[in-house]
Amino acid sequence: MSYPWPRPGTPISQIPTPMPVIDEAILERNIARAQKYLDDCGKSFRPHIKTHKIPALARQQIAGGANGINCQKITEAEVFADAGIDDILLTYHILGPAKLARLKLLNDRVAKLTVVADSKAVIDGLAATFDASRPLRVMVECDTGGKRCGVQTAQAAIELAEYIVAAPGLEFVGLMTYPAPGGAEQVETFLATAMQGLDAKGIPCPVRSSGGSPDLYKAHLVPSATEHRAGTYIYNDRSMVRAGQCGADDLAMTILATVISRPAADRAVLDSGSKALTSDLLGFSDYGQILGAEGARITGLSEEHAVVDLTGHSGKFPSLGEVVRIVPNHTCVVSNLFDRMVFHRDGVVTRVEDVAARGTVW
Amino acid sequence: MSYPWPRPGTPISQIPTPMPVIDEAILERNIARAQKYLDDCGKSFRPHIKTHKIPALARQQIAGGANGINCQKITEAEVFADAGIDDILLTYHILGPAKLARLKLLNDRVAKLTVVADSKAVIDGLAATFDASRPLRVMVECDTGGKRCGVQTAQAAIELAEYIVAAPGLEFVGLMTYPAPGGAEQVETFLATAMQGLDAKGIPCPVRSSGGSPDLYKAHLVPSATEHRAGTYIYNDRSMVRAGQCGADDLAMTILATVISRPAADRAVLDSGSKALTSDLLGFSDYGQILGAEGARITGLSEEHAVVDLTGHSGKFPSLGEVVRIVPNHTCVVSNLFDRMVFHRDGVVTRVEDVAARGTVW
Repeated sequence: MSYPWPRPGTPISQIPTPMPVIDEAILERNIARAQKYLDDCGKSFRPHIKTHKIPALARQQIAGGANGINCQKITEAEVFADAGIDDILLTYHILGPAKLARLKLLNDRVAKLTVVADSKAVIDGLAATFDASRPLRVMVECDTGGKRCGVQTAQAAIELAEYIVAAPGLEFVGLMTYPAPGGAEQVETFLATAMQGLDAKGIPCPVRSSGGSPDLYKAHLVPSATEHRAGTYIYNDRSMVRAGQCGADDLAMTILATVISRPAADRAVLDSGSKALTSDLLGFSDYGQILGAEGARITGLSEEHAVVDLTGHSGKFPSLGEVVRIVPNHTCVVSNLFDRMVFHRDGVVTRVEDVAARGTVW
Repeated sequence: MSYPWPRPGTPISQIPTPMPVIDEAILERNIARAQKYLDDCGKSFRPHIKTHKIPALARQQIAGGANGINCQKITEAEVFADAGIDDILLTYHILGPAKLARLKLLNDRVAKLTVVADSKAVIDGLAATFDASRPLRVMVECDTGGKRCGVQTAQAAIELAEYIVAAPGLEFVGLMTYPAPGGAEQVETFLATAMQGLDAKGIPCPVRSSGGSPDLYKAHLVPSATEHRAGTYIYNDRSMVRAGQCGADDLAMTILATVISRPAADRAVLDSGSKALTSDLLGFSDYGQILGAEGARITGLSEEHAVVDLTGHSGKFPSLGEVVRIVPNHTCVVSNLFDRMVFHRDGVVTRVEDVAARGTVW
């Protein structure tokens, strides 16, 4: 028996739980607002599709003015290439024969495919795979304080750029960074220094790509960046509210959950466990915010249960069988758990989309 | 282009990463060891399939001597019913018309289906759905210290048992608990007290089901329990080693990951992010154990990156492009992220199984 997803026209109040739902009106507003801000900044906008993994939403983002998309896996990019997206930045270091062979096939069918590198080892693999007949676009990833991947100095970025330029099958197109939140000044200094050095060597560096939803509306603080990448902004979540990047009215995703047990006066149990909310805390001390239940805290998750501590809740908590709505700490990882995503307008289901790039492993 | 899962015969050293792999020999040993222990205890064994979600593995567990399976969702149970499993305990409180209707269909085709209840509201829903022509088996869930669901006292358990007995469509079959780790004494006291009370009222209570992998090999400390439920033991993980329930040689699941960046002397980055390892800490301060790299700690995860702190690592960490093997903190949640699972014997792929019950929402 197949899984009973709700049909368009169904009131969301009738959907069995746990189930995330997306508000179409808020989604549209979130897309438009970010695009307008970046248009006003004079920057390109490249949404990161990790948040939704749904080709129809990528098309909405592009129709709204985005200049392409950002992926992190080859097989994820393939899903969007299949859907006709022709400008894809793969912000990942591709290594090993199987992935390189598959990347080559992808480059043959995407008009503008770009990857990143932060080491000679990665560039060597790319250089041995691609040739001048169909070169691959490559950016140098720079660590501007995010302490994940990336070269540590502008000088190292320049050296790798020269190394890319020397490879006939590769085209150096610029610099990419995933900065630490609040790191605008560091990003600007790094990019400006590297650009100056590249200019001195006569190496064009047309694209400088920065990113992150937590600093989306601070992109104007990095004048050297030509492009911004962000994912979470499309749905928004509790971490985005905390970061001051959206308000409570901008939360497109909520998770419907049912009160399934009331074992004690100070405890309720919901059917939204870590397989619905994920265990991502992102610095919070509880696992999501229950709307309209101030002081009620989801203090424990097991896979199919959320334990709610009602000690600090003074109102009447919903009864057994009643449905609550939860704002997740982190929306992207919730998308990754569900095969389909339910959309609604004013509480009535509008569509159910396959989360088509879910389950793509590399 | 479909996802390129490895074929049987492929050396696991050639599998692109990130990818969890299961060692067949360890899997077989884990199944046999738990079964023998519970056989020796004189208890039934009911594996929880949440850990693997694969019908072929449930059949291995039953062939090994298990008396049925444990699920937590109706649609998950359906997958195993489709595979011919005819004794299913659904340790969940089923509420609402859509789920009750679906539960009724399931009960019509599973020889022995059992659910749990810890409130009159849940029993009322069940009682209104089932009738004496095809009654549903119901157990009372007891909170013996686990502080999740369950009635708080033996007296409350007895009252709910009477309430179930009074419903013509329901058959009271016993008591179920998911205890706190280390809570054997509390479980025994609770069960023995409730059994005594039920006996005094002439209510048979043939099944007393306790559970949990962290206390699997302490099941003999609860003589009143007739059955034990456990899931994680089949693959095992870092939390099971810490709990003293298995050794390093009993870890059937490891996750293959590639070193994709070496941005600084004290930092490496792997391609196994929270979408491979999950962010479940389970009390650890890092996100999994890298085999053969003592002192190297996965201190940060983003969705597609694991940041490894090498400060405490004195050896030579694998180079860019090399593959490491990671023991996850929690194996069940890893299974939930992958559409298929790769098995191997002595490092050569034996089979690739659909994680058939992944993505079942309720």
